[in-house]
Amino acid sequence: MLYSLYGFWQSSCTWRVRVVLNLKNIRYNYVPINLLEGVQKQDDYKNLNNLEQVPTLIGKTFRLTQSMAIIQYLESAHPIPSLTPTDYLLKAKMFEICEIINSGIQPLQNLSMLKKIKELGGNPKDFAQEVIRKGFISVEDLVSQHHGKYCIGNEITIADAFLIPQINNALRYGVDMISFPQVMSVLEELNKVPEIIKASPDSKTDAIK
Amino acid sequence: MLYSLYGFWQSSCTWRVRVVLNLKNIRYNYVPINLLEGVQKQDDYKNLNNLEQVPTLIGKTFRLTQSMAIIQYLESAHPIPSLTPTDYLLKAKMFEICEIINSGIQPLQNLSMLKKIKELGGNPKDFAQEVIRKGFISVEDLVSQHHGKYCIGNEITIADAFLIPQINNALRYGVDMISFPQVMSVLEELNKVPEIIKASPDSKTDAIK
Repeated sequence: MLYSLYGFWQSSCTWRVRVVLNLKNIRYNYVPINLLEGVQKQDDYKNLNNLEQVPTLIGKTFRLTQSMAIIQYLESAHPIPSLTPTDYLLKAKMFEICEIINSGIQPLQNLSMLKKIKELGGNPKDFAQEVIRKGFISVEDLVSQHHGKYCIGNEITIADAFLIPQINNALRYGVDMISFPQVMSVLEELNKVPEIIKASPDSKTDAIK
Repeated sequence: MLYSLYGFWQSSCTWRVRVVLNLKNIRYNYVPINLLEGVQKQDDYKNLNNLEQVPTLIGKTFRLTQSMAIIQYLESAHPIPSLTPTDYLLKAKMFEICEIINSGIQPLQNLSMLKKIKELGGNPKDFAQEVIRKGFISVEDLVSQHHGKYCIGNEITIADAFLIPQINNALRYGVDMISFPQVMSVLEELNKVPEIIKASPDSKTDAIK
């Protein structure tokens, strides 16, 4: 195998990378890192990823962290099928959706942030819901501008790989997604794609059924 | 002018975009949005950026939010000088540095997050310091791998545009940067570049002197 992917079944950032690997038909070795048991803090893994986060991708000559960096590498090294629009503006719009999720929503509602909110006496679920709802108002607006089956028109792009796990997190934290009909219609389309179904957390070896 | 940039002088995400605009020698109209006075929450601006954040870039036919999306657009539409390595792996490493800052550090130490920590009775400064220090351990490690003047070798890349404002935030929150000698040596080199000096917050019309 060309790559080893270190991840956790429930991690939305790992899920993004699995979607891209599957869509590009790249086989890989999957190494589970149990975030709930603190495996990410052990030296063996910390030497691979000193932010103690997943995912990490290991290739023959390199090691990469950060889902967007890993996905950009895969997009360059395995360009077919392309998951990036050729049009400049559509490409930027794709990045806009990715980054609203990647920097605007996910970091504020991940396990370590919600743990912090709880430690301070706040309500992690309320906090997560607020952050996710606010982010999805923007994502819904962007998706609505590009009438098509997927986030950006009728071709699957990297934005779709970011969208799917974030919707899953939204549902997990009890966000009512009825206010985001375009987003949910994209999800319905994506859920018809076999490579995407195969990337779902429930199909991973470390999933708790 | 081709573009209007809506930003705030102290915003690190706006600063990233200014660095790129200057390096590409693109003139633009600058529209200050005072985040401390809540201008981002007023309808006029909220219609441009419903996440109530800066920056927003307005072109003749489009509107873009999210610094990474804006920078990717500028990189495509104004390709010279290029701020992205052609080598796949170096390009991915560039994204890795950008995203550690963009999603791993900045969202957790921006004004709205620190306000939340304060509301909950936590210590915003301690929280910001911890987040920034942890992120810079990774950035230092990455920069050290690419022996050169800048983040990735001897050419300025997008990673440098993300690095500069994040170091400024680190110093503002009292992080001792002596543990990150490679990062600080890159800053020293970047501070010799006129286009980068011109992008500093103090040179903006809305700066409080």
